Amino acid sequence: MRIDEAVKIRAKALNLLMKARIVVMPDEAESMEVTDFGLGDAGHIGLQVLVYENNDRYCAKELILLPRQICPEHRHPPIDAANPGKRETFRCRWGIVYLYTSGEPCPHPRAIIPGRYRSHFTVWNEIILRPGDQTTLPPDTLHWFQAGDEGAVLSEFSSSSIDELDVWSQPGLVRIPRYEES
Amino acid sequence: MRIDEAVKIRAKALNLLMKARIVVMPDEAESMEVTDFGLGDAGHIGLQVLVYENNDRYCAKELILLPRQICPEHRHPPIDAANPGKRETFRCRWGIVYLYTSGEPCPHPRAIIPGRYRSHFTVWNEIILRPGDQTTLPPDTLHWFQAGDEGAVLSEFSSSSIDELDVWSQPGLVRIPRYEES
Repeated sequence: MRIDEAVKIRAKALNLLMKARIVVMPDEAESMEVTDFGLGDAGHIGLQVLVYENNDRYCAKELILLPRQICPEHRHPPIDAANPGKRETFRCRWGIVYLYTSGEPCPHPRAIIPGRYRSHFTVWNEIILRPGDQTTLPPDTLHWFQAGDEGAVLSEFSSSSIDELDVWSQPGLVRIPRYEES
Repeated sequence: MRIDEAVKIRAKALNLLMKARIVVMPDEAESMEVTDFGLGDAGHIGLQVLVYENNDRYCAKELILLPRQICPEHRHPPIDAANPGKRETFRCRWGIVYLYTSGEPCPHPRAIIPGRYRSHFTVWNEIILRPGDQTTLPPDTLHWFQAGDEGAVLSEFSSSSIDELDVWSQPGLVRIPRYEES
């Protein structure tokens, strides 16, 4: 994605963190990760990530979603004998998050997916997270989420993040952002 | 400690979480851990803990300190071949935290320790944490901390917490609270 677009999205994400009253340092604000998963449609499919700490034992971050922005379906696969894949806990801090995982599909899901992406979303068990709500997903579980109409701030506590090994349901998605000169 | 005292302290801790704009669910508020480390002097030595998640891979909690309250000196020792001891990241959310660990002692530390406890505090390398500041301690490192005059809320992200195995510098300290009928 283009640097100037990433800078604009970062400003919107910082505004949501401010609404959530989460204090962010200037260097964290500048280095906040912005990804459109290579689709060039960040208004619909994208994610902003403020990594507090990621080491070989644990990870903590804030996920910031613009209004109705979607983090597309993926899973965190087993890595080796000692690591069955990333386990993660989501705790909503601000806004609403519609989280979907495997299980009984919700007949009337709150999420809204543009038709062109719809076939890449296969799990529809709905968990609604409002501020103070949290849930923990086991490793290797398919999941995806969308913010409500105001956007959302979601804390993620987990075992180590190895983002480049995540498996995405939509072929060709690129998780690690590449910023291109405008 | 007596239940009625724990209830009073819990209310003060919830007030600090509210100042930090951290949303807490009613069941979390009721079950928040309050410990005076068995000393019966919670105004000076004590800690309040809201555990979000603690599993065999990672842990996330909020530590809430009343004004000038001290979490006494301790370390998280190696557990077995796979676990060299708890590694932890502290991020200040509200108030000020004076954190001390091994290293060059601070000539004029900001912390204030009542004289009767002083000999049990042996590391004096000072790290001051204000909202947005964070630091990560390696396993098995001696450390302790005190809130500033307004109290503090400190997020802790870590590998698994096994509190009962912590090693305290002051003999006889009891980390796991026992609440007694009033």
